[in-house]
Amino acid sequence: MQPVQWEDGVLVLLDQTLLPSRIEYCRCRNYLQVAEAIKTMKVRGAPAIGVSAAYGIVLAAFSYQGEDKAEFMRTLEKARAVLAETRPTAVNLFWALERMKGVWEENSASAISEIKNILADEAKAILDEDLQANKRMGSFGNELIPKGASILTHCNAGALATAGFGTALGVIRTAHEAGKDIRVFADETRPLLQGARLTAWELLEDGIPVTLIADNMAGSIFRQGKIDLVIVGADRIAANGDVANKIGTYSVAVLAHYHHVPFYVAAPLSTFDLSLSTGQEIPIEERDAEEMRRWGEYQLAPQNVPVYNPAFDVTPADLVTAFITEKGIIRPPLKAGIKSLFEL
Amino acid sequence: MQPVQWEDGVLVLLDQTLLPSRIEYCRCRNYLQVAEAIKTMKVRGAPAIGVSAAYGIVLAAFSYQGEDKAEFMRTLEKARAVLAETRPTAVNLFWALERMKGVWEENSASAISEIKNILADEAKAILDEDLQANKRMGSFGNELIPKGASILTHCNAGALATAGFGTALGVIRTAHEAGKDIRVFADETRPLLQGARLTAWELLEDGIPVTLIADNMAGSIFRQGKIDLVIVGADRIAANGDVANKIGTYSVAVLAHYHHVPFYVAAPLSTFDLSLSTGQEIPIEERDAEEMRRWGEYQLAPQNVPVYNPAFDVTPADLVTAFITEKGIIRPPLKAGIKSLFEL
Repeated sequence: MQPVQWEDGVLVLLDQTLLPSRIEYCRCRNYLQVAEAIKTMKVRGAPAIGVSAAYGIVLAAFSYQGEDKAEFMRTLEKARAVLAETRPTAVNLFWALERMKGVWEENSASAISEIKNILADEAKAILDEDLQANKRMGSFGNELIPKGASILTHCNAGALATAGFGTALGVIRTAHEAGKDIRVFADETRPLLQGARLTAWELLEDGIPVTLIADNMAGSIFRQGKIDLVIVGADRIAANGDVANKIGTYSVAVLAHYHHVPFYVAAPLSTFDLSLSTGQEIPIEERDAEEMRRWGEYQLAPQNVPVYNPAFDVTPADLVTAFITEKGIIRPPLKAGIKSLFEL
Repeated sequence: MQPVQWEDGVLVLLDQTLLPSRIEYCRCRNYLQVAEAIKTMKVRGAPAIGVSAAYGIVLAAFSYQGEDKAEFMRTLEKARAVLAETRPTAVNLFWALERMKGVWEENSASAISEIKNILADEAKAILDEDLQANKRMGSFGNELIPKGASILTHCNAGALATAGFGTALGVIRTAHEAGKDIRVFADETRPLLQGARLTAWELLEDGIPVTLIADNMAGSIFRQGKIDLVIVGADRIAANGDVANKIGTYSVAVLAHYHHVPFYVAAPLSTFDLSLSTGQEIPIEERDAEEMRRWGEYQLAPQNVPVYNPAFDVTPADLVTAFITEKGIIRPPLKAGIKSLFEL
């Protein structure tokens, strides 16, 4: 399951807006198409957005046919600016774009054709590293999963949200492959139903037992003692350990806390934003009210009803039991743990 | 706004499955049509189900054209049994059916034609009393609403859920009419979206400021300090104060508790079931998985994914700040308060 692939100079994205009904690919031949695919959530999930944006820069680079280095640099910078405007919350987007910018600035003395190849190599490195990071998170996280565990997850932090394998679902996959006889409850995750459409689909494909629930059913299942632990992904983590993730994550964290159930966040280091001291500084995207009011041709609510549609919320660090990263587990005190992991 | 009306021997139900897109009425001419309307949720909401079931008995009575008293009684008893099988959780259904049965048993010496009229009068009394109870709940509940309050509600406990006016929304209406400058956040309430389709519609019709949110957004809004109190309805309340209500109510109650926000339940005495000592004894309806997997022609989740779809959950009494009933407010200790209200 590869949501993001580079094939002969084309970025091929699995169109996640059409799953699970249709498996169709969106072939991006220029950076504007990549920006549009990110905005419309054909590709989504913090790490997958980062990888896609990096390839957006590669497409911008290869589309430049001139010989003027300054003009080439301006082309790259313009693409970077446009891609950076697509979605505000997931920091992996900005992280990947900054990394690509660092590379073209570092190699500005090279020939244009050489810079193009270096940028392509860097995007591939970002993709490969993400996949490896997921596998390592899976191994580290697996140590936290008891045999026979019943696990709640929210949204999709799976292969579809990354270069492949997944963060939260990577841990779940690893535990499943280790024969731990786990089962998963997947929140459907309104309004765009990434849990119902993507997580349920991924887990079924892998033969991992999954039960779909509406977001509002999690509390009842916690109360019945049916959830042993929670694992979710993240879109941005502040230096103090506050976590921005898909809207509804905070409610799940409060429920886990109230029921004395561990709440784990699986995320690569590229999701940590040490420039922000707390989660209050994380920009939260608000999306179109139509996502709430309509589904396809169906009116779900009065057309004139005001809607609040934030795409993310912030879970404070004190509700996080531990972070699962590619460099190991971070336990409280989280701020110190994050700091020391970045100093490794 | 009258969801349940008796017009010249026909029970006219506003078809709530079609709102807000279409305003259509379902005309029930026999008790089987009433049973079907309750099952398919054309009429829903504990008090409205009770009133409808009472009129189901009236339709069964008037449809009997013979002169055999024993056969007439068996006809009524059969209708009662069929109507009682429609939905298991809301106790108002059983309460109304038992009340109708009490009436026909008490009047068994009367002529069949007379019993028919007595049953029609009793159903009308149930409807009228519900409306009056809603108004009184509104007045009592209004005392709990501060000026300028921002109120969260879940599902629809409005005019559409009752004989008119509403329980939770009755309190909200009364506070609005009192010029308290309140505003409402309405949970959309998956899977059937009673909050989006019905509550938002009702409040817009009355000009009460309302903002629609997905169920999973409530936590974020609590955290932002934007909710001053919660009011919900109920489907059945046990003797100790445990509350069965629409799935997701429990999550809201935990969030309210965590954020030190009052959590009120507005319900008429017909919703209390003193035969059950705790909420653990309340039967919880599980509905068809298709409610979760599809919306109209759209596939929302893989067709083969297992689904858990309970229609209700139980909120323990210790999360309830107070009950609002037609006889007054019940504050903790709730068990003693409930007992003494029934002894008035």
